[in-house]
Amino acid sequence: MSGARDEIEELIALMARLPGLGPRSARRAVLHLIRKRAGLMAPLAQMMAHVAETARECACCGNIAVGAICDICENPARATGEICVVEDVADLWAMERGGAFKGRYHVLGGTLSALDAVGPEELGIPKLIERVGAEGVREVILALNATVEGQTTAHYIAEALEGRDLRITSLAQGVPIGGELDYLDDGTIQAALRARRSF
Amino acid sequence: MSGARDEIEELIALMARLPGLGPRSARRAVLHLIRKRAGLMAPLAQMMAHVAETARECACCGNIAVGAICDICENPARATGEICVVEDVADLWAMERGGAFKGRYHVLGGTLSALDAVGPEELGIPKLIERVGAEGVREVILALNATVEGQTTAHYIAEALEGRDLRITSLAQGVPIGGELDYLDDGTIQAALRARRSF
Repeated sequence: MSGARDEIEELIALMARLPGLGPRSARRAVLHLIRKRAGLMAPLAQMMAHVAETARECACCGNIAVGAICDICENPARATGEICVVEDVADLWAMERGGAFKGRYHVLGGTLSALDAVGPEELGIPKLIERVGAEGVREVILALNATVEGQTTAHYIAEALEGRDLRITSLAQGVPIGGELDYLDDGTIQAALRARRSF
Repeated sequence: MSGARDEIEELIALMARLPGLGPRSARRAVLHLIRKRAGLMAPLAQMMAHVAETARECACCGNIAVGAICDICENPARATGEICVVEDVADLWAMERGGAFKGRYHVLGGTLSALDAVGPEELGIPKLIERVGAEGVREVILALNATVEGQTTAHYIAEALEGRDLRITSLAQGVPIGGELDYLDDGTIQAALRARRSF
């Protein structure tokens, strides 16, 4: 008799575990879903079940894949001899949206952290070093976040790759496109000034 | 080959249609789901499919139900001769969380709006009048939002029910529990003063 409420409450509790949704907004989302159950809820449930079943981690780079290997690792056109190292699949997606990078990726899945017991093994850094040899890589681009943890991890990887015949680069730091100096932090302005280019 | 990305993009597009999620937060939510696909994504998909299939509108009051009639309309203990009129199922849930009301509900599904062509028919007001007679209702509580639209609709319902042997009431307006006068709008303070009670 009270089954309907229980199931809806359970659905709300599950939705509330998504990042960006709290108990209140999850309730609002579920109500919206129930109102649009034919047009939105049913297709969403179906697509979610499908992705839950098929998606997995690429055995090579850590990207999300349907098979054992992701689209990018499978694509011979992406074997440019460049590997872009990112912290997260979200960062890989951001790079792909940019569309400027034509090589392959290596997703660390986090940053080095002594506190959380995340070492080089956990981040797949030995696997990266192995790939550098096996795939004839000429350049490793460290596209890690400009945070202390990201930069510590970048330094560790750069040291681990030292002595090999390859370029190690990182993303340029400076004023973002459309950025206004007045709203930028001092560190960014200093970095942009240090890396100034002739006009 | 690019099937994985297409399906994930489609899932993101569906998630972005939820209230409170935009394209960016939908992407973040989907990434989180893929990471927790066994523990969160699969059960969420299953529960969503289940609710999409079973949930419907209560034929009597407009609440969400599994059968033709909702739990509250089915429960003889809730036949107290009181009907609480709310705009939305979310408002019904809010009333139920309060736990103070023991009667039944009537969910309008909106407010009167000439612009959006929402008339009394669309809000089930004739159905409400019919219920008042059929269920021996002694009190109709107009728990509509304290907005212009909500109050216009409340006045319309009060007029439509005039001349019958029943009390028509509305929720009290005043200072919320824990509210600080300094942070309240002038209208609320005025309403609370007008409705002041002996201490």
